[in-house]
Amino acid sequence: MSKKKNTNKLPNSLKPVAGNGLLDRRLFLQKGLTFTALTTAATAIPSVIAKASGGPEKRAEIDLIRPPWMRQPGKPFSSYGVPSPYEDKVVRLPSANSVLQGNGASWSPLHQLEGTITPNGLHFERHHNGVPQIDPEHHKLLIHGMVEKESFFTLDALMRYPHRSQTCFVECGGNSNSSWNKNASRSPLGYTHGLVSCSNWAGVPLSTLLSEVGVKKKARWLIAEGADAFAMNMSIPLEKAMDDAMLALFQNGERLRPENGYPMRLLVPGWEGVLNVKWVRRIELSDQPVMARNETSKYTELLPSGKSRIFTLEMHAKSLITSPVSSTFIPEPGLFQISGLAWSGRGKVKKVEVSADNGDTWAEAALDSPIIPKAFTRFRMPWRWDGKPAYLKSRVTDETGYVQPERDELVANRGRHGYFHYNAIMTLAVEDDGFVTHVYRAEEDQDPGSLGIDADW
Amino acid sequence: MSKKKNTNKLPNSLKPVAGNGLLDRRLFLQKGLTFTALTTAATAIPSVIAKASGGPEKRAEIDLIRPPWMRQPGKPFSSYGVPSPYEDKVVRLPSANSVLQGNGASWSPLHQLEGTITPNGLHFERHHNGVPQIDPEHHKLLIHGMVEKESFFTLDALMRYPHRSQTCFVECGGNSNSSWNKNASRSPLGYTHGLVSCSNWAGVPLSTLLSEVGVKKKARWLIAEGADAFAMNMSIPLEKAMDDAMLALFQNGERLRPENGYPMRLLVPGWEGVLNVKWVRRIELSDQPVMARNETSKYTELLPSGKSRIFTLEMHAKSLITSPVSSTFIPEPGLFQISGLAWSGRGKVKKVEVSADNGDTWAEAALDSPIIPKAFTRFRMPWRWDGKPAYLKSRVTDETGYVQPERDELVANRGRHGYFHYNAIMTLAVEDDGFVTHVYRAEEDQDPGSLGIDADW
Repeated sequence: MSKKKNTNKLPNSLKPVAGNGLLDRRLFLQKGLTFTALTTAATAIPSVIAKASGGPEKRAEIDLIRPPWMRQPGKPFSSYGVPSPYEDKVVRLPSANSVLQGNGASWSPLHQLEGTITPNGLHFERHHNGVPQIDPEHHKLLIHGMVEKESFFTLDALMRYPHRSQTCFVECGGNSNSSWNKNASRSPLGYTHGLVSCSNWAGVPLSTLLSEVGVKKKARWLIAEGADAFAMNMSIPLEKAMDDAMLALFQNGERLRPENGYPMRLLVPGWEGVLNVKWVRRIELSDQPVMARNETSKYTELLPSGKSRIFTLEMHAKSLITSPVSSTFIPEPGLFQISGLAWSGRGKVKKVEVSADNGDTWAEAALDSPIIPKAFTRFRMPWRWDGKPAYLKSRVTDETGYVQPERDELVANRGRHGYFHYNAIMTLAVEDDGFVTHVYRAEEDQDPGSLGIDADW
Repeated sequence: MSKKKNTNKLPNSLKPVAGNGLLDRRLFLQKGLTFTALTTAATAIPSVIAKASGGPEKRAEIDLIRPPWMRQPGKPFSSYGVPSPYEDKVVRLPSANSVLQGNGASWSPLHQLEGTITPNGLHFERHHNGVPQIDPEHHKLLIHGMVEKESFFTLDALMRYPHRSQTCFVECGGNSNSSWNKNASRSPLGYTHGLVSCSNWAGVPLSTLLSEVGVKKKARWLIAEGADAFAMNMSIPLEKAMDDAMLALFQNGERLRPENGYPMRLLVPGWEGVLNVKWVRRIELSDQPVMARNETSKYTELLPSGKSRIFTLEMHAKSLITSPVSSTFIPEPGLFQISGLAWSGRGKVKKVEVSADNGDTWAEAALDSPIIPKAFTRFRMPWRWDGKPAYLKSRVTDETGYVQPERDELVANRGRHGYFHYNAIMTLAVEDDGFVTHVYRAEEDQDPGSLGIDADW
């Protein structure tokens, strides 16, 4: 922990706990701090309230400061609400394949969100041939292959089964893939790292359905197929399916949205998004994986050693600073909150550390509770920006002891053919005018360790 | 715990733990149970998958069972998603005052939801004069009265403050008010009990803002006023405000919806909904409450003792069975899941018990984790319905030891003038044909202890 000379005159609560102005997270519990230059109420504002019986003069004075929307009745009740028209810039960013219709992704605007739940309308999308419009009356799940009783499950039947609800993230294995590029993306955070979202899911534990159809002894894999035009299919180890996988029917309370698998999808907590097969219509039990497109030509990476990674199922721990936001200005020197998200496919987030001096010193951030395994955890760190250049980083450690790597380390391990599972520490450069930029390094030198690649759906 | 004679031949896991077929909650962990009559896959269904190289005949066979939505590309990506058109019956039910425009409520369809989060579009509404359409650029929060520095807070300034996120319920003090009526409501559950919802909220702790403006020693109350045409105002004890109240800016990740207070509202965890002032524009620190309409003509109840209840701020523990649903049929005798929601304004749910024999015997339900203080907790209970009449109840106990009361007890304590804070045990009657009905008692006799009242906004 480095401390600067000129901090000796600050009260203890404002003394840095790490370089470049990071303050103790317990600061959030302290009182009387000035986070912003307050606009003091003009004397013209009456310090009376509606109960005041100050006569017509006083009432007129109060009315004078009433905005237009207090002068007429508001809009009526609605059967299903929508966001304010003033929030119409808070949207997913589609990034579609120009050749194959309906193949691509849309990115969740993480830089515009707070808390730990992603609203359903802004959950990221990843499709291979568009969003099928499924009539639930004509959709059934077939479980077949190495089972005792090949069976169909209608939605009515599934609603009768015991359910389970669980808050967890889903992250595309290709999330953050532009970060393998030679140059750091200048897009807003969500449009670089937003193929991850977190919801409260509910449905039937897969183990319940598998137990009911009776899995044969030789079965080792589930092969799940979606009812989209691509007939997306993926292999999932039986052990994981029997552990915590779910046939999800509800997302954040309501039935799944079409782009998230309506009327049913797999939920494979903590594992890469592509395994969470949407619009699932068929699960075959098999003694071997199917070796689908997304297990061979995709999701397979040549390593520097000459070996290839394949079936890289689990998502490793990752953290992102969501505030401040790249390509915006910090308005002035002073006290701020650095905030972000952390998660791990292996379980709970144990701690998140933040650095303001490019990783030379670190301090532990406060975490919002509860900390839920395989779900978003929100971290926060008080920071006094002194108006000089700074480099902000966050680093998560999960309950298994796994520590999020620096980019150089990740690139060295994974080599020139990295495309999936990018989870390196992100760096934000703050210039002396307050402008924030996503960078790879303190000095923007070339990065010989990575390719210039484009999204390749 | 009563056990029936004829259960001796059942395997241990299926032996009842309480009357009328309630089974041990650990049953959910067991394998090989039959929850429904499965549709066995016809032999015509090929047990091959897309990888099959069975030649054109096999492929044609697979294609034959492909539904129409697999035969053409699906819909494109969207910037903001909406529910499936097949779910257009899952809506809030508005129940407006016929005299005063924009005064009333809309009910959340709890009977159609699962998990523990309410999606923003279906969060209940309660307005006094409609939903103001506020331009956030022209909305400021004034904190004034008994403070050192009367101050305005713009949204830009508020975004800079340290935030906190918290999952908690908001329940209108008038929720379930028709249950004070002489006859039990036959409406679907949500349209009787759905003025309660649960979200992941984020914003600035009120204690941070109050510390910054400096609260004078004599201040005891906050008087908050909304920027709606009603200028709704309420008094909140300073102690609660400094404890866990929040100026909420985000709901389930995104900015508040207009009907939930955009661009800012109070969140007063565990206390009655009316205190969570929406569109809040002004907070005055005072040494006394304002004695507003909702603290005098409303939210005040004459008790049998002749005394009146007033400032009944905390919401007591409550539970509801959400499945099975009133006015629907249980399709056939067999194994089912009884599921529902429980919550307490005092903290965590400790346990939920379920009875199938009108309260003669009870068994403890399984609870989805995590159990979050002042938030929805989902409970589940396995039940074997034998095709005979049954009476289902749920009963929550919170961490303070408070036990949800039976209706007779509540009515006896609160008398003929009960209107708010109805939290009695709900009873569902199951007839021998499987029809489920919301009732007050096993035998539908008259209930002399309550008035026939109508909603009175």
